[in-house]
Amino acid sequence: MYLDRCARVLEKLDEQKIEQMLITDPYAILYLTGKYIDPDERMYALYLNKNGNHKIFINSMFSVPEDLGVEKIRFDDTDDASAFLCRVVEKGKPLGVDKTFSAKYLLPVIKNSGASDYKLTSDCVDEVRAAKDTAERELMREASRINDLAMARFRNLIHEGVSEKEVEQQMLGIYRELGAEEYSFEPTVCFGSNTAEAHHDPDGTLIKEGDVVLLDVGCIKDGYCSDMTRVFFYKKVLKEEHRRIYDIVRHATESAEAICRPGIKIHEVDDMARGIIRDAGYGNYFNYRTGHFIGLEAHEAGDVSAINNSIAVPGNCFSIEPGIFIEGDIGVSIEDLVMITEDGAEILNHYSHDLDIIE
Amino acid sequence: MYLDRCARVLEKLDEQKIEQMLITDPYAILYLTGKYIDPDERMYALYLNKNGNHKIFINSMFSVPEDLGVEKIRFDDTDDASAFLCRVVEKGKPLGVDKTFSAKYLLPVIKNSGASDYKLTSDCVDEVRAAKDTAERELMREASRINDLAMARFRNLIHEGVSEKEVEQQMLGIYRELGAEEYSFEPTVCFGSNTAEAHHDPDGTLIKEGDVVLLDVGCIKDGYCSDMTRVFFYKKVLKEEHRRIYDIVRHATESAEAICRPGIKIHEVDDMARGIIRDAGYGNYFNYRTGHFIGLEAHEAGDVSAINNSIAVPGNCFSIEPGIFIEGDIGVSIEDLVMITEDGAEILNHYSHDLDIIE
Repeated sequence: MYLDRCARVLEKLDEQKIEQMLITDPYAILYLTGKYIDPDERMYALYLNKNGNHKIFINSMFSVPEDLGVEKIRFDDTDDASAFLCRVVEKGKPLGVDKTFSAKYLLPVIKNSGASDYKLTSDCVDEVRAAKDTAERELMREASRINDLAMARFRNLIHEGVSEKEVEQQMLGIYRELGAEEYSFEPTVCFGSNTAEAHHDPDGTLIKEGDVVLLDVGCIKDGYCSDMTRVFFYKKVLKEEHRRIYDIVRHATESAEAICRPGIKIHEVDDMARGIIRDAGYGNYFNYRTGHFIGLEAHEAGDVSAINNSIAVPGNCFSIEPGIFIEGDIGVSIEDLVMITEDGAEILNHYSHDLDIIE
Repeated sequence: MYLDRCARVLEKLDEQKIEQMLITDPYAILYLTGKYIDPDERMYALYLNKNGNHKIFINSMFSVPEDLGVEKIRFDDTDDASAFLCRVVEKGKPLGVDKTFSAKYLLPVIKNSGASDYKLTSDCVDEVRAAKDTAERELMREASRINDLAMARFRNLIHEGVSEKEVEQQMLGIYRELGAEEYSFEPTVCFGSNTAEAHHDPDGTLIKEGDVVLLDVGCIKDGYCSDMTRVFFYKKVLKEEHRRIYDIVRHATESAEAICRPGIKIHEVDDMARGIIRDAGYGNYFNYRTGHFIGLEAHEAGDVSAINNSIAVPGNCFSIEPGIFIEGDIGVSIEDLVMITEDGAEILNHYSHDLDIIE
């Protein structure tokens, strides 16, 4: 257990007049205990209580260290797992609930725990997690340093006759050569009009002259994630409009990055990127949030979007990835990670934004 | 939309006096609509109503075909997604809820939808999914056929000086050469006493004489999953007890397989395997369910466990994977997939159960 981190979560709960919470996001539990378990469909929960009566609920099939620093409550596949939670929850008081807690266990807890109310209080954990400490910041830098090096090598995989799938299949090996453990998410490799399709899976599409190439990639190094997008052109830029779109997106990304600093409202970052794309006449082709927070997971709580009124604080790490996606034609996004510091912001990616035509 | 599959789900809901349900498991939605989306933390739901007023809720960032066969309700990252659900739910009637539905959206729905009650009704979808049709059965056979071929090649990766990680890193390539798309789950590769650790991640551990080698592996072919475990010995069997454990586990697996047929209660399969291991004196070293259902996902609803009183029906596919895991010493499991047929059962894996000492 990281007791200092737990104490900060309890402080935030206290501000919401909540004394007890069930945390079920396995990465939040990793953040608070140092131990990661992938429970699949099994119940897995950390219970925090202001009175110090913390418990962790772990199916007995998972090995855990003896000295986890918190009392373990073990159960089997044949047990009614939610009943174990109900026995621990303090009756007559509201219970904070994690956003990932699934209906399978939440509905029985609501019926049987005797708590007075149920409130989504994930933000109390997420806000603590979102303010990376010194050691975490160094890990975030390192994961993105590897991602920069990897991007240079991925670019060089683009050559006559190559397919999206062939490029994708070489990426994990390159990341591992560079010292990363895994992908932080399945990479996106798109050629031509496939770039316009959100979340296109790399397929047998072959590269052809005039194609735009979109690579949205990231790795995990020592548990922390990177995430970056770059767009290249193959042999030539097909139309003047493609060049214009690239320039608009680059301007949007760089302008949004430029205003990052502690104290800014997160939505201002989105406003900046979105305003530039809208003023250029492409507002309808940018229909997603500008970015997402990142750390132990590629997507952590916190959207860089128009409705996020929270204030950036030192240690916040998020992506800035505005784009223009025109179905059947082209998709362009330029994405970097940004880390808020005590007196400004650090862009974690250093791979060039210049328009790059691969010969 | 597969309207016949939806009709079967609605029939099962009707038996529980439920007229409307929110399905949120992306694989259940794939099963019912033919379309898979990985929504990450975004809301994604299929609403079925006895009156035919079905809807699918999809964030507008995801591309979907025009003709999905069900009305699409689109929303953006900045929308209050659960409010869209609340507008569609019929007030004053109970709402069936999928077990995967997360608190983030479920708590607001409970507060605002006006449904009279909330019931976990995933079983209505899961039972339909669990009875594979003719085409699905053929896909299940094919995924396991590839897994059998792959196991023979994985076995041959075990040689002097090799580490768990090195074996694991060659597996995906082998699966792909054999025509599979992906892992169905991250493979387990353990040497020596690491085998006793549930869900051990392959690491730098080197093979050494007398080690037991545990490979728990599976692939996805045309969307359907395989899953098999085999245990090998390297150069020699270290102790007579290891050989005895192997024989007990083999006997448990084969005896459980032998009784599979339509009409049997699922827990009887667990009873058979567990009884053999318990009678041999190792009951305390087999502390998990005998198996799990499988199909579009490696783990589907349905445990082969002591508390599953449901009746096996044709098309059910599940794993049988009893084992003996003694911390610090050895872990042995032999796992096959079994498919219930109209008049008996088919073992989908044909890779030998014979004790195999790798020279």
